[in-house]
Amino acid sequence: MKPPIITLLTDFGTQDTYVGAMKGVIQGICPGARMVDLTHEVPAQAVIAGAFLLKTALDYLPKGTIHLAVVDPGVGSARKPVVLKAGGQTFVGPDNGLFTAALKGRKIAEIIELTGEKYRLKNPSSTFHGRDIFAPAAAYLAKGVPAARLGKKLSNLIWREIPVPFKTPKGLVGQVLWIDHFGNLVTNFEASHLKKPLRLKMGKTVILNLHEHYAQAKKGELIALIGSFGNLEISVNGGNAAQRLGATIGTTFLFF
Amino acid sequence: MKPPIITLLTDFGTQDTYVGAMKGVIQGICPGARMVDLTHEVPAQAVIAGAFLLKTALDYLPKGTIHLAVVDPGVGSARKPVVLKAGGQTFVGPDNGLFTAALKGRKIAEIIELTGEKYRLKNPSSTFHGRDIFAPAAAYLAKGVPAARLGKKLSNLIWREIPVPFKTPKGLVGQVLWIDHFGNLVTNFEASHLKKPLRLKMGKTVILNLHEHYAQAKKGELIALIGSFGNLEISVNGGNAAQRLGATIGTTFLFF
Amino acid sequence: MKPPIITLLTDFGTQDTYVGAMKGVIQGICPGARMVDLTHEVPAQAVIAGAFLLKTALDYLPKGTIHLAVVDPGVGSARKPVVLKAGGQTFVGPDNGLFTAALKGRKIAEIIELTGEKYRLKNPSSTFHGRDIFAPAAAYLAKGVPAARLGKKLSNLIWREIPVPFKTPKGLVGQVLWIDHFGNLVTNFEASHLKKPLRLKMGKTVILNLHEHYAQAKKGELIALIGSFGNLEISVNGGNAAQRLGATIGTTFLFF
Repeated sequence: MKPPIITLLTDFGTQDTYVGAMKGVIQGICPGARMVDLTHEVPAQAVIAGAFLLKTALDYLPKGTIHLAVVDPGVGSARKPVVLKAGGQTFVGPDNGLFTAALKGRKIAEIIELTGEKYRLKNPSSTFHGRDIFAPAAAYLAKGVPAARLGKKLSNLIWREIPVPFKTPKGLVGQVLWIDHFGNLVTNFEASHLKKPLRLKMGKTVILNLHEHYAQAKKGELIALIGSFGNLEISVNGGNAAQRLGATIGTTFLFF
Repeated sequence: MKPPIITLLTDFGTQDTYVGAMKGVIQGICPGARMVDLTHEVPAQAVIAGAFLLKTALDYLPKGTIHLAVVDPGVGSARKPVVLKAGGQTFVGPDNGLFTAALKGRKIAEIIELTGEKYRLKNPSSTFHGRDIFAPAAAYLAKGVPAARLGKKLSNLIWREIPVPFKTPKGLVGQVLWIDHFGNLVTNFEASHLKKPLRLKMGKTVILNLHEHYAQAKKGELIALIGSFGNLEISVNGGNAAQRLGATIGTTFLFF
Repeated sequence: MKPPIITLLTDFGTQDTYVGAMKGVIQGICPGARMVDLTHEVPAQAVIAGAFLLKTALDYLPKGTIHLAVVDPGVGSARKPVVLKAGGQTFVGPDNGLFTAALKGRKIAEIIELTGEKYRLKNPSSTFHGRDIFAPAAAYLAKGVPAARLGKKLSNLIWREIPVPFKTPKGLVGQVLWIDHFGNLVTNFEASHLKKPLRLKMGKTVILNLHEHYAQAKKGELIALIGSFGNLEISVNGGNAAQRLGATIGTTFLFF
C-alpha cells in the first residue's frame, strides 16, 4: 500500500528554500512520501485567502490525504500547532482559522495539539514551524503514526469564517474572495444565490450575462459564470477582469 | 514496472490550486503516478507558445510518456477533448492545435475523442476540463487503460503550424517564438537556415557574431548562438536581450 | 531500498521547460527517482546567492542526498562540470564556487570531473549542461553508479566564499545575503556575533529590538531576530523590511 498523499499549501513563495526544506524533512522521515503542491502563493499572511484556496482543492484529493497548510502570522507565539481529522482527511498546521472553511459541514473526528517532542525536529526554530513542527508531523502521520500519539487532545479550535453574501435593502451584496491567474474574480456568490435573469452590479458596471463557459462570449466581453469552484466568477473572455474593473480581493458586487 | 511519466504543461500559473487539483485527481486514480511539470507559465491562452514549449521537451522524456497539456481558450465549447498517440508518446488535451508542433514529422497512430463518461469526473465543469476530463484521462492511460476505451476514433485534428521563416527580396525573415527566463530570444531560425558569415538584423541592430556559448562573448555583448532547443537565439552575455532590444514574441529578424 | 533524493537548485525560473527537461532526463535514466525542488529562482547567474540558498537547505535533507545545482554563467567554457562528495551528501554542478558554502567545514571525500561520455546525453549542447551533463550524472549516481566511474579525479576546486562580517573602528559591519519572499533581510551576522543589548544600524535607521519571533512585535514594527537559517534577520511584523528600508542584497548593517 502506498502512503497517503501529503498536500502542501503555504504563503512561502518559491524563491527561497523554505518549501524544499519542508519536503526534505518529509522525505527524510517518510521515504517515498507522495507530495502534491496546492499552491505556495497564498498572499503573505492572508489566512482567509489560504482557507478558501485549501477548500477549493479538497474534493479532488483522495480519502486519507494529509493537508499540510501553513499561513502562519503568529508563528512562535501562543497560537497552537495542531492536527485535525475530519471527513476522512487530515489537516496539519497552525490553529488560526486556516482550516475553518475546509472543516465546515464536516464532522471533526479529532483535534490534537502538536506537543510531542519526539515528532518534531530538535530545537525547533521560533519562526519556521512549517519545517520544524508541521512537516515532521505530516510525515509521521503519512508513515502511519496515529494522530493521538503526536500530542494532546483539544476540544476547541479557532474558527474564522469566509465572508458570506448579506442582504441589504438594495439587494444581496457579495464580495471577491480570490482573483485567479487569469484575472477572473471569484466571488462568494454560489449557484444557490442566483436569480434569473442575472442582474449584477459593481459601481456603475452592470453585468446581465450568465454564461456556461468563456468561449460563449465575444472576445473582450465581460461575463459572469459559475466557475470550477462552484462560485460565481466575473470574467472577460480572452482578457483580465480584475484589471478591467480595477477589482481586488474584497471588492463588493450587488445582485439588484 | 513503474507506470509511465505524466508531464503537465498549462497556462494555469501556480498561484491557484488548479494544478494541485489536477495532480490530486491523477493520484486518486493512479496512485504513485510519476508527474513532471514542464511549465505552467505558458502565456494565458497562447496556444502556439504552448505548442512550441511542449515540442522543446519531447526528446527528453522517455518513450511511453503521457503529455497532459492544457492551453484551452475554447474550454466548454465545441472543441474536442482528445488523446493522441504518436512516436511512442501519448498526448492528452484540447484539439485546438496545441499538439501540431509535437506531432509534426511523427506518425500519428491513434486519435480518440474523450467521450467516455466512465473516464472523467462526474458532472464535469464547463470551465476546467484540465481537472475534470484531461487529468482523469491521463491517469487512466497511466494505469494501463487502452486509449481506444476512453472514447471514439477520430480521423482529423485541428492543425496549427508554428510560423517558419520566409523568403523576401531582402533576405530570409524569421521571428521570435519564445523569450526565456534569461531574456534570450528564441527564433524560428534553425541551424539549417544559417549562412556564414552571419548577417542578422533587427531594425537598425546588426548582429554578426555567431558564438558557441555565452561565456565566449564579452560581458554585455549582443550575440547569436544555436541554443539548447536547436534554434538560433539572440542573447546578451550576462544580460537580457529582450529588454535590450525591446523585442517580444513575434518580433522579426532578417538574414541579409 | 528507495533511491536517494535528488534536489534541484537553479537560476532557470519556471516559465521555460528547462527544469522539466532535466527531470525528464533523470526519470528516463533512473525511473522513480525522488526529486525535491529547492528553488529555481536564484537570481540569474548569481553564484553566491545560489551558494547561500543551497547551504540553507542541506541540514534538512537526509544523508545520501544528491544535490544537483546549476547557476552557471560559464556554461560551455573551460569551467569544469564536477561531482563532489562531502559530509555524506553528493553535489553535482559547475565548478565555479557554487558549492563552497555547502562544503565549508565538511571533509571533501571525492572530487570528480564529469568527463565520462557514457554518462551524459549524446552531443551535449554548449549552453545547457544542466540537461545534458548534470542531470544524467545525478541520475546515474542515484541509480548507484559510483562517482569515480563518471570521470577523472581532481584535487582542487574553485573556492568562492560568502562574505563574512568584518571589524571597523565603528563596529562590526555585516551585509544582506538574501531577501526572502516576505521581504525579510537575511544578513551574514550569526548568533555568535550578537552582543546584548542589540545596537544595529543601517544608515540612519537604528534597531534595538531583538525578538524571538515575528508576532512578539507590534504590527509594522521593525525588528531583528535569529531566523530559521541561524542568521540575524531584519523584519517588519506583518510587512516587508526590504521595501521599508530600500535594502538590497549587499546592503550593509553596523553593530555599533
